[in-house]
Amino acid sequence: MTEDSRSPLAPRDIADLTPIDGVKLGAIGAGIKYQDRFDLMLAEFSADTAVAGVLTQSATASAPVMWCKENLVSGSARGLIVNSGNANAFTGDTGARHVTSTCEAVANCIGCDSGQVFIASTGVIGEFLPIDRITGNVHSLHQSLSTQGWRNAAEAIMTTDTFPKVATRELSIGGVPVKLNGIAKGSGMIEPNMATMLAFVFTDAAISADVLRPLLTVANEVSFNSITVDSDTSTSDTCLMFATGAAANPVPQSVNDPILEEFTAGVVDLMQDLAIQVVKDGEGANKLIKVTVTGAENNQAAKRVAKSIANSPLVKTAIAGEDANWGRVVMAVGKAGEKISNPRLEISFGGVLITQGGRVVEDYDESEVTQHLKGQEIEVRAHLGVGDGQSEVWTCDLTHGYISINADYRS
Amino acid sequence: MTEDSRSPLAPRDIADLTPIDGVKLGAIGAGIKYQDRFDLMLAEFSADTAVAGVLTQSATASAPVMWCKENLVSGSARGLIVNSGNANAFTGDTGARHVTSTCEAVANCIGCDSGQVFIASTGVIGEFLPIDRITGNVHSLHQSLSTQGWRNAAEAIMTTDTFPKVATRELSIGGVPVKLNGIAKGSGMIEPNMATMLAFVFTDAAISADVLRPLLTVANEVSFNSITVDSDTSTSDTCLMFATGAAANPVPQSVNDPILEEFTAGVVDLMQDLAIQVVKDGEGANKLIKVTVTGAENNQAAKRVAKSIANSPLVKTAIAGEDANWGRVVMAVGKAGEKISNPRLEISFGGVLITQGGRVVEDYDESEVTQHLKGQEIEVRAHLGVGDGQSEVWTCDLTHGYISINADYRS
Repeated sequence: MTEDSRSPLAPRDIADLTPIDGVKLGAIGAGIKYQDRFDLMLAEFSADTAVAGVLTQSATASAPVMWCKENLVSGSARGLIVNSGNANAFTGDTGARHVTSTCEAVANCIGCDSGQVFIASTGVIGEFLPIDRITGNVHSLHQSLSTQGWRNAAEAIMTTDTFPKVATRELSIGGVPVKLNGIAKGSGMIEPNMATMLAFVFTDAAISADVLRPLLTVANEVSFNSITVDSDTSTSDTCLMFATGAAANPVPQSVNDPILEEFTAGVVDLMQDLAIQVVKDGEGANKLIKVTVTGAENNQAAKRVAKSIANSPLVKTAIAGEDANWGRVVMAVGKAGEKISNPRLEISFGGVLITQGGRVVEDYDESEVTQHLKGQEIEVRAHLGVGDGQSEVWTCDLTHGYISINADYRS
Repeated sequence: MTEDSRSPLAPRDIADLTPIDGVKLGAIGAGIKYQDRFDLMLAEFSADTAVAGVLTQSATASAPVMWCKENLVSGSARGLIVNSGNANAFTGDTGARHVTSTCEAVANCIGCDSGQVFIASTGVIGEFLPIDRITGNVHSLHQSLSTQGWRNAAEAIMTTDTFPKVATRELSIGGVPVKLNGIAKGSGMIEPNMATMLAFVFTDAAISADVLRPLLTVANEVSFNSITVDSDTSTSDTCLMFATGAAANPVPQSVNDPILEEFTAGVVDLMQDLAIQVVKDGEGANKLIKVTVTGAENNQAAKRVAKSIANSPLVKTAIAGEDANWGRVVMAVGKAGEKISNPRLEISFGGVLITQGGRVVEDYDESEVTQHLKGQEIEVRAHLGVGDGQSEVWTCDLTHGYISINADYRS
């Protein structure tokens, strides 16, 4: 990955993730599809680590997703193994056997039940994993795990990503300091109905799986469930959160326990950070677009309208062309199938109000909007004028780069 | 429009439309947005012409759409005026006044009620029409109408279209010959929830508006409602059908009258012809893609899955790149939210079965599929294995051309 091929929206510096008590991890180049780079990561968690997850709603979910779905019920995790380059999706019984043998190999090294090992795969759909390159590498990979392996792990889960996505936060629960690290990968097929792509969040906080589950669902809804690159939903979308309990904080009794307030806000903040990094690395992305919809009938309606704008190829190409074509936002609002008031519909770009009273504002000066569109972070707002519902969604522009990447991804 | 800029899928010859009794039409270059080309068409119909229509379901429908919606109730038409270059959409009271004054100007020339004049506008959203260039040209345009004006009319309604879309059929009702001519325009913003874009169908058949309405709805469902270019739905989608009654055929008593069978099939055939021309001229299209879904729970479910495949940017870019990436079809089937059977899911490209038993077929030979993808007409089939529902949807590939056209359309 040369500097030149990185997204123009890539952060200047990749944050340095420091150890989290109870987590050891590492990565290896197993040659699953890519050569000369990490493509297999492994993490080991201390005993009593709790886990929660949100998974793709796809009816053709991958074999690893089905495994996670089944094993999340117990709420107990000791390992996580992730490969890139091959999604192990639509691979039938063979794919399911590959998942079992991989998790068993990891469980043997860790000394745990295979059901405590979680797994994710990302890459091409429909091809069988070169399973020996995974199971044959598990032992040496396990030997190499360290508390410092964050950056390598973040790189190992990348596919067409142009930079590793990491984030870290220092928080506290009931006065006891706790830590939060997260890694994620994009970058096409981003329109989650559930979690998006792969994202893994780790904390040393002591939180039961029963509390972790609703916390993750809430945070996911306003982060990974609020981004879209191309409206496509993957067979492999997986977001898992692991809590080792090493921090020995007072244990929250429920997701609404007041001692959890700061922590929950921190998880939301970290997951939004990762989600926005995913959008910034959207295939071919030159601009980050934040769509805010207010005045909808309710929050769900607001989100549907925001997604309709954020997924419109005509809106996304106009922004790619730095063209202040707000009429396409009118179109995208109109096609969403939600209640709106035409006379009260207010559309603005970069804080400049463009429509009011069912038409363009009298003294509309396009030059200010054009200036805003030349930037890298674009703000589109639509006020629907029928209620109090609101939602924020992040997306990127649709450029020649997207076509180039996807017209020839597999070969 | 040079030959070079025409879609590679354009028909070699544009059909020559001959007169239809009771229809006079013509076009003029009014300079509404484009220079040196037709951009305003007018048609006059004989007394007692019946009309039916299907219109966009957009919540931000244009002023002309709202006018048509109101006046279709009467079922009686004497005129049709259409401009390109400006959609007169989201133009508030001013836009509505412009519609009224245009239709009144036409009604004055024809000598009819303004409610018998139908109107459509297509082009940029949110800008006010240069109304004088329309009303000031109506009289001379009306003077020039002839029974031969079909080709000019088809050209006048084009925006980013690279060729005029016309079709003609000779049919009969109860043994009496009747004729059918149709014109349409695309070419982006093609994902109708109702009609798509602009399409106008003319016949000399004697059919009441009460029979014409259900007939058009049925034909529209399997033609303009079964195509998609980019999933965007326009504020202006309008499909109108006019029947002058000059042919003096026996009048069908209902849409199910046996004497109407051949005619209904002919209307479906002509409208599918026009709809496929619209897809072939989809912005940047290099390939026509026919998506057939069978074995769905019901026809509606089949159509949703077919649309999910046809609208997937990842499927469309893979086909643009002639990449046999069938895994993206698995993804698109999975994300549609409909019931499917993974073990029974059968995906084929160009008649070559690729998946069976929840995985790729044992002896799958990709070379045959790759050969099929090099052609201009691509067939994708998915059998869902849960019922008898089926649907056909047409779309085109997603190419650099789409980005180029839409990143700088307005300026």
